[in-house]
Amino acid sequence: MQDLAKTFKQFQQLTDRALLRFLPATDIKPQKLHQAMHYSVFNGGKRFRPILAYSIAKTQQVDYQQVEACACATELIHCYSLIHDDLPAMDDDDLRRGKPTCHIQFDEATAILCGDALQAFAFDILLNHLPDTIPLQNQINIMKTLSYASGSFGMAGGQAIDLESADKAISLQQLEEMHNKKTGALISASIKMACFCCDMQDQQLLQRLEKYAHLLGLNFQITDDILDIESDTLTLGKPQGSDQQANKATFPAILGMAETKRYAQNTHQAILDELEGLNEDYDILRQISEYILTRKH
Amino acid sequence: MQDLAKTFKQFQQLTDRALLRFLPATDIKPQKLHQAMHYSVFNGGKRFRPILAYSIAKTQQVDYQQVEACACATELIHCYSLIHDDLPAMDDDDLRRGKPTCHIQFDEATAILCGDALQAFAFDILLNHLPDTIPLQNQINIMKTLSYASGSFGMAGGQAIDLESADKAISLQQLEEMHNKKTGALISASIKMACFCCDMQDQQLLQRLEKYAHLLGLNFQITDDILDIESDTLTLGKPQGSDQQANKATFPAILGMAETKRYAQNTHQAILDELEGLNEDYDILRQISEYILTRKH
Repeated sequence: MQDLAKTFKQFQQLTDRALLRFLPATDIKPQKLHQAMHYSVFNGGKRFRPILAYSIAKTQQVDYQQVEACACATELIHCYSLIHDDLPAMDDDDLRRGKPTCHIQFDEATAILCGDALQAFAFDILLNHLPDTIPLQNQINIMKTLSYASGSFGMAGGQAIDLESADKAISLQQLEEMHNKKTGALISASIKMACFCCDMQDQQLLQRLEKYAHLLGLNFQITDDILDIESDTLTLGKPQGSDQQANKATFPAILGMAETKRYAQNTHQAILDELEGLNEDYDILRQISEYILTRKH
Repeated sequence: MQDLAKTFKQFQQLTDRALLRFLPATDIKPQKLHQAMHYSVFNGGKRFRPILAYSIAKTQQVDYQQVEACACATELIHCYSLIHDDLPAMDDDDLRRGKPTCHIQFDEATAILCGDALQAFAFDILLNHLPDTIPLQNQINIMKTLSYASGSFGMAGGQAIDLESADKAISLQQLEEMHNKKTGALISASIKMACFCCDMQDQQLLQRLEKYAHLLGLNFQITDDILDIESDTLTLGKPQGSDQQANKATFPAILGMAETKRYAQNTHQAILDELEGLNEDYDILRQISEYILTRKH
């Protein structure tokens, strides 16, 4: 897994460098808004969605620049959603990755506008920085994938379901459906968009990668719920046990901890089965699943 | 002007019908979010941005369907911005067009997500419903125009500047710069996007229409400030004098009412001068400027 850590670091650096190049500088008007955008985007995030996009490029031995705009766009959508989720009217979180959340550091109005501007900017980056080598129809499909994953059938819809389900008993199926929209949609989009960047044509392979993305998104959430209970606040960067406190539906709340851990293990196995027979170029995707299963934050 | 009222009504109906066709129905999950989207989109808005798009199609004698997706997309961006602007952390308005604002009718979290989802949906409509007859490069340019007009250099940036300038003395130039971003950018975008839909090639004409859009957006705001003082709450659909109360910078506050009215008249004249020599196909654009100057709400 040491190689994986190195690869992750490389992808994170590629992402950060590109984001810094794309984002308007903090001394450009309106400065406060641009400062809030920088503050929220460069806050030590794991860059998980960009890592997935770069990993797809790696499996296809395609130049990383080909997926750069997609990597940045999905990360900006993710960043904007965190800013809005943290607002007092939503999850009301003061701390994110160990630092004050955007509305604490700046103010609520700026945090709302910052999220709004980042969403527009995600599309702006795709519209202005997808390489010419990507056929125009693929470019359109890339943006279709992102707009669908961000809207009421994807991330925003998932967050709405999440809010509605607080304090309510929901089934495992409802919980998975909620997560599938709230976080799964954007994780799947990162992979699908990268496939369009690489102009992949093998329909069977694309279906397998779509299934992979779906299962990976699921396991990302299962292990997130486990960490919320078992990890400490310092490692986590947010208050430990905050889901329990907010009376949120979680996998451990429905299945119990032991069963939840088995479910994570089984999902990891299902992912490996899905990749069965693909050559060592796809090892990075196997390692990412392993990483999700064993991560500490 | 009776013909204009009829034309406006036709364009409003085309817009409403298309929006109803595009928006997810209120019985589709997540229902509350989709209900909030419908509530906020179908609230008796003037559809001014769609009217501009259809008017451009009329000047070019192009089928109205060609600009339908653009008309809807700009209106959705406008609707989302109103929802977020009305939030307690922003302008804190309870009333919009005589009805409770989205966060009053639903709740703050839903209002935030509703705005977020509508922004994504604006791009979704363009990505899925621009007619095939529009060249792909034009389609990309249409979306570029919208993402730029919505983001930190356009609408979201203008709102940030507006918030920063509350309780501060600002110059006429700063006021115009703020409005140019906050409302002008999207008004100009409606016209520019429609020009791409019609595949207009005459660069000189495009420049004149761009200037027209800029001046029209300016006069829209000047007359808005006048109405805020002179119209009553019932006609306006929002509390009369709300700008004064919020201690906002306005044209009358800087120039005085008499000078503001002269400025509106002069801007209208500048618009007519800009259209000088264009044939009667462009009368609709002249009439729109006249309407802006003399409107009561």
